[in-house]
Amino acid sequence: MLQNIRVVLVNTSHPGNIGGAARAMKNMGLSRLVLVDPQDFPSSEATARASGATDILGSVQVVGTLEEALVGCSVALGTSARERHIPWPLLDPRECATTCLQHIQQESEVALVFGREYAGLTNEELQRCHFHVHIPSDPAFSSLNLAAAVQVLSYEVRMAWLQAQGQPTKMSKVEPVSLDEQQVTADELELFYGHLESTLVQIGFLDPQNPRHLMSRLRRLYGRSGISKLEMNILRGVLTETQKVVRGEPHKRRKEDV
Amino acid sequence: MLQNIRVVLVNTSHPGNIGGAARAMKNMGLSRLVLVDPQDFPSSEATARASGATDILGSVQVVGTLEEALVGCSVALGTSARERHIPWPLLDPRECATTCLQHIQQESEVALVFGREYAGLTNEELQRCHFHVHIPSDPAFSSLNLAAAVQVLSYEVRMAWLQAQGQPTKMSKVEPVSLDEQQVTADELELFYGHLESTLVQIGFLDPQNPRHLMSRLRRLYGRSGISKLEMNILRGVLTETQKVVRGEPHKRRKEDV
Repeated sequence: MLQNIRVVLVNTSHPGNIGGAARAMKNMGLSRLVLVDPQDFPSSEATARASGATDILGSVQVVGTLEEALVGCSVALGTSARERHIPWPLLDPRECATTCLQHIQQESEVALVFGREYAGLTNEELQRCHFHVHIPSDPAFSSLNLAAAVQVLSYEVRMAWLQAQGQPTKMSKVEPVSLDEQQVTADELELFYGHLESTLVQIGFLDPQNPRHLMSRLRRLYGRSGISKLEMNILRGVLTETQKVVRGEPHKRRKEDV
Repeated sequence: MLQNIRVVLVNTSHPGNIGGAARAMKNMGLSRLVLVDPQDFPSSEATARASGATDILGSVQVVGTLEEALVGCSVALGTSARERHIPWPLLDPRECATTCLQHIQQESEVALVFGREYAGLTNEELQRCHFHVHIPSDPAFSSLNLAAAVQVLSYEVRMAWLQAQGQPTKMSKVEPVSLDEQQVTADELELFYGHLESTLVQIGFLDPQNPRHLMSRLRRLYGRSGISKLEMNILRGVLTETQKVVRGEPHKRRKEDV
């Protein structure tokens, strides 16, 4: 599905930015790069900055005009840094990603269009785009590096795509859930609090005749910590060992089990 | 508020990435950069890639250890490319931004920590971070350029910050709303449809005895287009001129008014 998205770079000056854009695309699962009249390509600098995304550079499509780059696209989204004379449908990067997803889910092709490093897209080029996209930069320093802009839009597309697929946006573990990820249950936590309280009494830290708010404060602390079963085993182990000390049992070295 | 966020780069190899990170930060309104044991800094390559974000490079803090870089922070979020042995609270970039906002809104300080270009953060460094952040890259090509990673997290922080401020994530226009932004009302659209239909009859395109679905199709088209008042003026102007032609009125050149 993501292969229906093409990234179009118009009249890029610096080949390093072409390489950086290719790397950003590949990181985010995009693969199709179209260059409109690049000033210096192919170039060893592009290859260096691509840092392994050489397959994208190898299959790049070089054309002479934006019109050629957009052939077959049902929607073109052009990045724009400044307010234009003619108001145009304007999206932020997240809305841009939503729009991309809507189209590629219908098997339509989509173009993300990026302009020149210093001058952006011309008004004529922008008017060939159905939507304009603005990355919400600080107005006092608003011009992003070209590869950085490709990174932001590609990232938002990937986030939207993962969500549309029902895939997690975080790494999923393949292994079964370990003790370190299972949360303790409320009853296990109560057993711990009982164990903790009796131990604190035994070591003379908690006076049962005048307990004040000590246990409440400890409950508040552990309650909000989201303790795992493994961590609970550790805490209970500490209490058990403390109690042994109180009872004067001989200390014996135990195998490392945490 | 954003000044409470520091970006920490650990043991960076390439000064260009330091410059690229500074530019990405400044684009997104962040200003505080801390370098832990950089391999080559200051450097002309960093300055070149910063592309105007030289104030950030000029006020950079260089320290020897991650521990020093985190002094005063209430929360540190460390980027992590791979699954670690010890499970740790893991956030995606959007959750990372939410966490940052929660802390800076309470005037706490926050660190976003980025590791080495090839090796990332060590396990020991990651364990100094309260949360790990993973940018959801393609598992087949997962390693982002360092400055690109700074760009993605800084962008998400800015989006969250703008939303928290109730500020638009798109450029807002200062000018009063023009005719080109005001949508036509339903009654204006009906007047247009009437005008359109009579014109189509007059030019012989629409047969009133056998209208078929022509007007329905035109209503569907214009209805979904979100026509502005200015555009409506243009369409009505076209119809009026067409009717003059039908009536055989002499064509006179009019002033450009669209």
